[in-house]
Amino acid sequence: MALGTGTDSGTGTTTTSAAAAPSTRVSRRGLLAALGSGAVGAGLVGAGVLAAEVSGRSPSSSGSAGSGDPSTDGGSSAVVPFHGEHQAGIATDVQANLHFAAFDVTATSRDDLVALLQDWTAAAVALTAGKEVGEGGASSGKPLAPPSDTGEAVDLHANRLTLTVGAGPSLFDSRFGLSAARPAALVDLPAFPADALVPERSDGDLCVQACADDPQVAVHAIRTLTRIAAGRAAVRWAQLGYGRAATVDPNAPTPRNLFGFKDGTANPAASDTATLDDQVWVQRGDESGAAAWVVGGSYLVARRIRMHIETWDRTSLQEQEQVIGRTKGAGAPLGHAGEHDSFDPKTLPASSHVRLAHPTLNGGAQMLRRGYNFTDGTDGLGHLDAGLFFLAYQRDVRKAFIPIQTALARQDALSEYLEHTASGVWAVFPGVPEGGYLGQQLLST
Amino acid sequence: MALGTGTDSGTGTTTTSAAAAPSTRVSRRGLLAALGSGAVGAGLVGAGVLAAEVSGRSPSSSGSAGSGDPSTDGGSSAVVPFHGEHQAGIATDVQANLHFAAFDVTATSRDDLVALLQDWTAAAVALTAGKEVGEGGASSGKPLAPPSDTGEAVDLHANRLTLTVGAGPSLFDSRFGLSAARPAALVDLPAFPADALVPERSDGDLCVQACADDPQVAVHAIRTLTRIAAGRAAVRWAQLGYGRAATVDPNAPTPRNLFGFKDGTANPAASDTATLDDQVWVQRGDESGAAAWVVGGSYLVARRIRMHIETWDRTSLQEQEQVIGRTKGAGAPLGHAGEHDSFDPKTLPASSHVRLAHPTLNGGAQMLRRGYNFTDGTDGLGHLDAGLFFLAYQRDVRKAFIPIQTALARQDALSEYLEHTASGVWAVFPGVPEGGYLGQQLLST
Repeated sequence: MALGTGTDSGTGTTTTSAAAAPSTRVSRRGLLAALGSGAVGAGLVGAGVLAAEVSGRSPSSSGSAGSGDPSTDGGSSAVVPFHGEHQAGIATDVQANLHFAAFDVTATSRDDLVALLQDWTAAAVALTAGKEVGEGGASSGKPLAPPSDTGEAVDLHANRLTLTVGAGPSLFDSRFGLSAARPAALVDLPAFPADALVPERSDGDLCVQACADDPQVAVHAIRTLTRIAAGRAAVRWAQLGYGRAATVDPNAPTPRNLFGFKDGTANPAASDTATLDDQVWVQRGDESGAAAWVVGGSYLVARRIRMHIETWDRTSLQEQEQVIGRTKGAGAPLGHAGEHDSFDPKTLPASSHVRLAHPTLNGGAQMLRRGYNFTDGTDGLGHLDAGLFFLAYQRDVRKAFIPIQTALARQDALSEYLEHTASGVWAVFPGVPEGGYLGQQLLST
Repeated sequence: MALGTGTDSGTGTTTTSAAAAPSTRVSRRGLLAALGSGAVGAGLVGAGVLAAEVSGRSPSSSGSAGSGDPSTDGGSSAVVPFHGEHQAGIATDVQANLHFAAFDVTATSRDDLVALLQDWTAAAVALTAGKEVGEGGASSGKPLAPPSDTGEAVDLHANRLTLTVGAGPSLFDSRFGLSAARPAALVDLPAFPADALVPERSDGDLCVQACADDPQVAVHAIRTLTRIAAGRAAVRWAQLGYGRAATVDPNAPTPRNLFGFKDGTANPAASDTATLDDQVWVQRGDESGAAAWVVGGSYLVARRIRMHIETWDRTSLQEQEQVIGRTKGAGAPLGHAGEHDSFDPKTLPASSHVRLAHPTLNGGAQMLRRGYNFTDGTDGLGHLDAGLFFLAYQRDVRKAFIPIQTALARQDALSEYLEHTASGVWAVFPGVPEGGYLGQQLLST
C-alpha cells in the first residue's frame, strides 16, 4: 500500500530531478558532491549548528580515508577510515545509532569462511566510504540482474558508519581447524545470578557491530553483509539501538539511559591511548602461539539488559539516587555537586552501582563501554520491552567483565530492576591493513 | 552492568559539571539556553550544514509556540506548537523518528476517560515544548517522591516532537456512552486479500503517534503518556520507526523505503492547504449531529507492512522497476528521466504500484502519507523482520484507503513481496485550543 510512490500526481511539475540520474552508477559520495554544490545546499548555509551540537555532527567533511586515526569530523558525509591498526567502531566516537547482528556460519570449509570474510571486507570498505556495494547498483544499466546494492542508503552518505567484526567461542570448534587458535581469554561467560538469557538471541560464530549517525545506514550495512553471506552464514539474532549521539563534542551532555541517569560519565576517552592500551587492546605477550593473532584486537561482551522501567518509575528520587550512587539531575557522585567531581567510592552506599563497578574495587579494571538504549515494542503485558544494549570492549574479560558483573549481580541494588536477556562474547579481530581482510591474522596461519 | 556510570574513575578532573545543576527544576529549554551560549556551541559554528541537509534540520530556532502553523524551523530546540485548529503531526514536516502506540482504555467511566485525556493534554503541552512533565523532575528537591518526569530526555530539547491522538472504533462501544458519536466514516476496515494481521498488534481504543527528530524524545513521550495512563489505559501494542528525515527542505532527496525505491514523491505538500482541505481534514457537513465533533480532525490508517526484502533482493533491476513503475536510481516514472516529470499512469505497466495507486484511477483520492521504515530484529528464520510502518491521513477512508488498498491487494505486482501484519483505523481528534483538551469536542457533548 503506497509503497514506492503511492498517490503520485501525474500533473506535477516537469523536469528537474532533484537527485539527478548519473549515467553510470549512483555513488553516495558522487551524489553528495552534486548535492553539496547544488540546490540542496542552498538555503542551509549556516544552518544546523544546534543539530550538530546534539547529534554530534560537526562540519561537513569529505572524510580522511587513509589516515590511521578514525575521523572525528561530523556531518552526514563524514567517513571513519576502515583500515588501521585497530578496527574502527571501538575507540571511534560513539555514533547515534546501532544495528548489531550475530551470525551462525553455515559454510563447512575453511576456504568458504575465508572467502566470506574477504567478501565482507570488500563490502565494508565500500559501505564505510558511503558507496554502494558492487558494480551494479540502482542505476547500473544491468536490467536483467538483481542490483548489487539494495539501494535504500543511496542518498544517505557514510554518516560515520563503522563495521566491527569478531569471532565467538563457537568458531573455534572442530569445523574450521581453529581450535588451537582460540585465545585463552576468550572464555565462555559463566552464568550470573538472575540471568534470564534467551539462547536463540545469544552468542554466535561471528558478530558485526554497525554504528552510524543514521539508522538506515546501519541497517543497510547489516542487510548487505547478510545478503553477501547467503549460503555461508545466517543471522542468528540482531538488535537495534539508539540514543548515543552527542559524544563527539567532549562538552556535550553525557547521554542518559532509560532510568533517566547519565550513563558513561567516566568512560575512557578515545584520545587516552595509554588507558586504551592498558585496558582495551590485546597486547603482545597476552596470547602466544596460534592465538597470537588476536594482538591488536579486543574482546567484546554484549548483553541485552531489559530494564523494568515501570517499577523503577515508581521508586522515589532518593531511592533511585541511592541505588545508582549519583544524583539524577546533574549526575554528580552523592555528596558532590558536579558530574565530574572527584570522589571516593567508599563514601557511596555499599550496594550502589557506581561504587560496586568502580575500578578501585575491581583491581583497576575498566571497560570501554558503548551501550545503546533500545525499545522493542511491548512485552504483551502492557510494559515497554526496553533497556540497554550493553557493549563493552576490554583487554581480558577474565579481569574486567566477569569479576565486575559477578560483584554487581550479587550485591548491586540496581540488579533488582534489571534482567539480562541476551549475552555474547567475541574476540574482535585486529585492524585490517590496506589489501588485507577481516580475520586474516587468524585464518592465514 | 555498568548502567548508570559503570567504571567511573574517582580520580577524574574536578569541577565543571557540563550540564550544570539548576537550583529548581531542569528544563530542557533552560538547559538549551545555557548550552547555546556556552562551551557546547563553541567550535561548531558554521557546522552541520550537511547534517541539516540530510536530517531535515534547518537553523536553530527557539521555536514559535503560539503560532497557529506548525514550525518548519529545525534544530534540536525547534518546537512545533501543540495548540491549533488541527493537531500537529499530520501536516507537520515529517520528523526523523516515530514511536507509535495503541492503547486499550481500562477506565470504566466517562469521567475517568475525560480525566485521562486532560492529563495527557497537560503532558503533551510540556513534552512538545521540550519541558519535563510535572513539577517534580530530576532535580525537584522532593527526594521521597518518585520523580514526576522519568528524566531520559532531560538534555534532549523538543526536537520537533509532535503527539497526535485519535479514537478507534472500539471507543464507541457501550462503555462511555459514545455510540451515537461514532462518525459514519470511522468504519471497520474490511479484510483484504493476503492480509496476515496479528490481532494483538492491531486496533486499540486510542492511538498516539509520537514523532521527533530524536528517537529518545519520541520514546520518552510514549513512556510518559503510558505512565500517566496507569490504571486507566494500557499499551496494547507499539511500533518504532525511522528513516524519514530530509523532508523539511523541499529540495532534499525523497526518502527511500527498504526496497531501495524513493517513497513519497508526490505526497501532498504541507503548504498545499487546498489539497489538505479536500483530502485530509474532515470538513463541516461531512458528519452531523453527535458525530460533528470530528470536523477539523482526520482519519488515520496504520498498517505494519512486512517487506520480504530477501526475495525482493533476488529480483532483477528491470523486474523491480516494472513492479514499482519508476526507476530505482532517479525515481523517474518509467519512460521518463526525472523523479518529478509529468506522466500518464496509463503508460505504466498495468500491475505496477504507481499506476494502481494513482489518484486518476481512484476517483481522485489522495492520502497524506507519513510512513516510517522499521527493523524489528530477525524473524527466527535468518530474515530481517523489516518493512514499512504505513501511516496515512485522509478525509474519508471509504473514499481513499479502502478502495485504493482493494485495488492494490488484488492486482498490485508488489503485493507478492508484502505482508500486512498489523492494522488500525482511528478518528483523529481536531486540534486543541488553548485551555482545551484532546477529544474535548467529542467528550463535552
